[in-house]
Amino acid sequence: MAAARGKTIIEVTVVGPDRKGVVADITNFIFRNGGNIEKINQNVVRGLFGMQLEASFAEIDRKQLDDGLKQLSKKLSMEIKVHYQEPDRLQNVAIFVSKEPHCLAKLLEAKKKGEIKANIPVVIGSDTTLKPMADEVGIPFHAVAHIDQAEAENKILQLIDQYNIDLIVLARYMRILTPNFVWRYPNRIINIHPSLLPAFPGAYAYVQAYERGAKIVGCTAHFVTEDLDQGPIISQESFKVSKGDTLDTIKKKGQEMEAATLLEAVRLYLENKLEVYWGKVYVKDDERTKK
Amino acid sequence: MAAARGKTIIEVTVVGPDRKGVVADITNFIFRNGGNIEKINQNVVRGLFGMQLEASFAEIDRKQLDDGLKQLSKKLSMEIKVHYQEPDRLQNVAIFVSKEPHCLAKLLEAKKKGEIKANIPVVIGSDTTLKPMADEVGIPFHAVAHIDQAEAENKILQLIDQYNIDLIVLARYMRILTPNFVWRYPNRIINIHPSLLPAFPGAYAYVQAYERGAKIVGCTAHFVTEDLDQGPIISQESFKVSKGDTLDTIKKKGQEMEAATLLEAVRLYLENKLEVYWGKVYVKDDERTKK
Amino acid sequence: MAAARGKTIIEVTVVGPDRKGVVADITNFIFRNGGNIEKINQNVVRGLFGMQLEASFAEIDRKQLDDGLKQLSKKLSMEIKVHYQEPDRLQNVAIFVSKEPHCLAKLLEAKKKGEIKANIPVVIGSDTTLKPMADEVGIPFHAVAHIDQAEAENKILQLIDQYNIDLIVLARYMRILTPNFVWRYPNRIINIHPSLLPAFPGAYAYVQAYERGAKIVGCTAHFVTEDLDQGPIISQESFKVSKGDTLDTIKKKGQEMEAATLLEAVRLYLENKLEVYWGKVYVKDDERTKK
Amino acid sequence: MAAARGKTIIEVTVVGPDRKGVVADITNFIFRNGGNIEKINQNVVRGLFGMQLEASFAEIDRKQLDDGLKQLSKKLSMEIKVHYQEPDRLQNVAIFVSKEPHCLAKLLEAKKKGEIKANIPVVIGSDTTLKPMADEVGIPFHAVAHIDQAEAENKILQLIDQYNIDLIVLARYMRILTPNFVWRYPNRIINIHPSLLPAFPGAYAYVQAYERGAKIVGCTAHFVTEDLDQGPIISQESFKVSKGDTLDTIKKKGQEMEAATLLEAVRLYLENKLEVYWGKVYVKDDERTKK
Repeated sequence: MAAARGKTIIEVTVVGPDRKGVVADITNFIFRNGGNIEKINQNVVRGLFGMQLEASFAEIDRKQLDDGLKQLSKKLSMEIKVHYQEPDRLQNVAIFVSKEPHCLAKLLEAKKKGEIKANIPVVIGSDTTLKPMADEVGIPFHAVAHIDQAEAENKILQLIDQYNIDLIVLARYMRILTPNFVWRYPNRIINIHPSLLPAFPGAYAYVQAYERGAKIVGCTAHFVTEDLDQGPIISQESFKVSKGDTLDTIKKKGQEMEAATLLEAVRLYLENKLEVYWGKVYVKDDERTKK
Repeated sequence: MAAARGKTIIEVTVVGPDRKGVVADITNFIFRNGGNIEKINQNVVRGLFGMQLEASFAEIDRKQLDDGLKQLSKKLSMEIKVHYQEPDRLQNVAIFVSKEPHCLAKLLEAKKKGEIKANIPVVIGSDTTLKPMADEVGIPFHAVAHIDQAEAENKILQLIDQYNIDLIVLARYMRILTPNFVWRYPNRIINIHPSLLPAFPGAYAYVQAYERGAKIVGCTAHFVTEDLDQGPIISQESFKVSKGDTLDTIKKKGQEMEAATLLEAVRLYLENKLEVYWGKVYVKDDERTKK
Repeated sequence: MAAARGKTIIEVTVVGPDRKGVVADITNFIFRNGGNIEKINQNVVRGLFGMQLEASFAEIDRKQLDDGLKQLSKKLSMEIKVHYQEPDRLQNVAIFVSKEPHCLAKLLEAKKKGEIKANIPVVIGSDTTLKPMADEVGIPFHAVAHIDQAEAENKILQLIDQYNIDLIVLARYMRILTPNFVWRYPNRIINIHPSLLPAFPGAYAYVQAYERGAKIVGCTAHFVTEDLDQGPIISQESFKVSKGDTLDTIKKKGQEMEAATLLEAVRLYLENKLEVYWGKVYVKDDERTKK
Repeated sequence: MAAARGKTIIEVTVVGPDRKGVVADITNFIFRNGGNIEKINQNVVRGLFGMQLEASFAEIDRKQLDDGLKQLSKKLSMEIKVHYQEPDRLQNVAIFVSKEPHCLAKLLEAKKKGEIKANIPVVIGSDTTLKPMADEVGIPFHAVAHIDQAEAENKILQLIDQYNIDLIVLARYMRILTPNFVWRYPNRIINIHPSLLPAFPGAYAYVQAYERGAKIVGCTAHFVTEDLDQGPIISQESFKVSKGDTLDTIKKKGQEMEAATLLEAVRLYLENKLEVYWGKVYVKDDERTKK
């Protein structure tokens, strides 16, 4: 994710029905255009091929690169996107929500107070429950129901394009995104999960922790990958269960903690302090960031 | 585990090659002797049958009960043991160790300072590494190597009997005990595991937490069941990983935490504050204990 | 499941919100009424208690037993049911279906041809897709949608009672039943799963086998327990994947195999040839059955 | 794995302590030498980096490529190996064994009968139990004990080099190979596992199948990856458990089946009929092979 001085880092994502020759064509293209491949990753799930590639360029002709990738996309019948890393530009953040308001509230408040520096051009909800919160601060709100998963994701992909989004924040979004979606935003989707992962993945984290008799309950902000609740961990917080705690009091304490932990992860991302390497997040210290 | 006033609670364990009719014979025996069955649990693993039964008696004739169970044991070709719950009697605690000294040191120190009230009549090691620590305080130390698992467990079972042990504490014992052993001491074996279970079970907890990029690392004291690292959780502690932490510093901090957490669990047990119900530990508050 | 000559075997199920003393009260009741406890099993999931008990009686007063259990049920606020094992009586079988017709068709055809001897007083569907098939042979069909799981199961439990059902056959029912339902019919619900369990549990067995490149594909008829797709295996069949096979041809072959395998399991059950012991099914040979 | 006519396919493996820039340097090197990257795969486990790359060349200068990779190896402090695909050359096969003779016997017999065409220049055992079998047919036998895993693997790696091995066959080898070993032979290590994977992985497959009450028992020949018993499936065979079967009779039938299934997989490999694509093996039909 980090760039050496003066170099341009681009991230290319390729998604489409699996076919041979894609790796060769894409890597060839990068090399012919003067790029060095820094990271490359491929995957196939149920016939869908996904490839993420990070390349560095000493010099780059954006127009030529964009045009070339467009032609390649046509030739291969693959959707190819390029994302230029420009950490100094104000990032565009989309917040995805469902019915729980606490994480969205925290993020909007932090933006207002200047605790995070970013544009928040859009909030996307699985229904309209939290529309009033977006309305209040004048952010466009789009409700996209997940009746047909593929259709919903396509609508959302269009919105993401339209608003030129750099970072997606799942603020208790409660929907599972497919590889077709996730592979397009490698290490650019942050989720908050209400447990100390890898413990208690899935939809009933607090209930499971309570029933298991866990004495420490926590939450985890992490990047989203195609493996549910297994992406690289950004930040975690926890508290001790007290004797008087019920499932309800645990949930309540947990929700405050979720909001703060998600905010911290988003802040670290926006301040360009996160480096992901082989599925593990390294938080850069200030020394290094200043370089 | 708790007894109503004036009642005698006994715990009967039955272990042996699986055969029919055992449940009927044992439960019948309890009823004919005036007992009420409070809890009953059975299991078969690889042909070995194990049964744990808790019964309450308004009045009890120990001699008659012991003799009757001895006859039943012969008739069924099953090993049957009875353990009378006598929480007011000073409990006999056996400490099992391997090479790591920190937990044993903590327990011995706590005993010396009077922080825990119990006899510690024996320390059992998988080798002689920690013998000097036991020698220093005049506690017999027995080394039992695990070359043949069944043989080793039989030797240890004899020692447990010989020292009339109520509670077994696995102080970083690093050996897996089979159902044949574990079923004889239901909720009377306490282990310390270096992770916030259910996360990172198994032998490489710190390494896994470190490689996974966990930001919170902890440990768990729990009762031992036949399911490795899945027994009822007694106590948990944790700390946050700092930027400068290496695997080594994490392990070092973790070991101090392990010792303190294990001690806390042992203390709660000895003060009769733990109640296990359907795989979950309830810590009785003082109010309730006074009743 | 099998009874010694002349003995009456009953199966008692107890389901309700967990509370103490239930085991003692139920086992006491059985003993006071002259029964021997042959098997006993208990479980708690999310606060719901379930107990299954098998008892044998040399002599039995049904009226007294039924009345006593009714009183106990009231006292304990638990639903208590007793099922008398009468293998010589023609069993009442309920078939549960969804949209796939092949298993229902096979069972109805077998009944018509006399290959299985049983009453089929009711077919229950998750929707009305297969109603015409039941109509054609004059069997009442009830559609119960699973919009609210608890409500749906309650409706079905009433139907099961109303038709006095002994055996429930899930003929590609495609719905997961909760412990609240399953615990009431221990070893009396048979499911067909489209894989050689324990491989490929869950909803996408053929797809997974195909994607994993399995060279042998099969299906499993098994008793249903609270652990999804993990109940005791009754029968399994398999075929080898040929070079020309696609996911579609595999599914098609698989469905014929499912129907035959489920029928075989039902036939074995109805002929009283299945004995379940510690989660494993023993198929009694003819010698033994004749005894 | 397959090459278009006239093209040279090479497979490059890179293994060493993880460091940045390796992907860029290796891919750059391939391109500068006129190669197209067909497949690329990387992994990091506990700080060890492994990369497998398949590249095709219209023309190739082996000397230049070998020399260049040697220099790169020195520069990167990584072990780099290149394997030229020459399916028409007689392949060198190493057989790894432990104490069970049945698979080795079958392979040696098949070689003698001409059922498989290959050199078998070496047999490697975890001890000397099967040395006499190798001696009898004049094949060098090396016993390498697994006391220290890293040391043992290094010794074996040297033997593999010395005998210029193309294919490694694990004929009930009963040892787990680390990523450091496995990554060097992508899709060139074949194992036989005594279950229908993914069911019953691990060391006790027959025991588990028996205890679980499986009605169909089988075995699986598969390529070995860093994930134990999860590599691409090459061939599977099975049989139905009969009423009279005990664990012993199942094991005995199983062992014959293992030997035949492993032989079939080796034969398919040597006849160049296996193509691995995204973790799934495709068996080429004769039509395709003739092309």
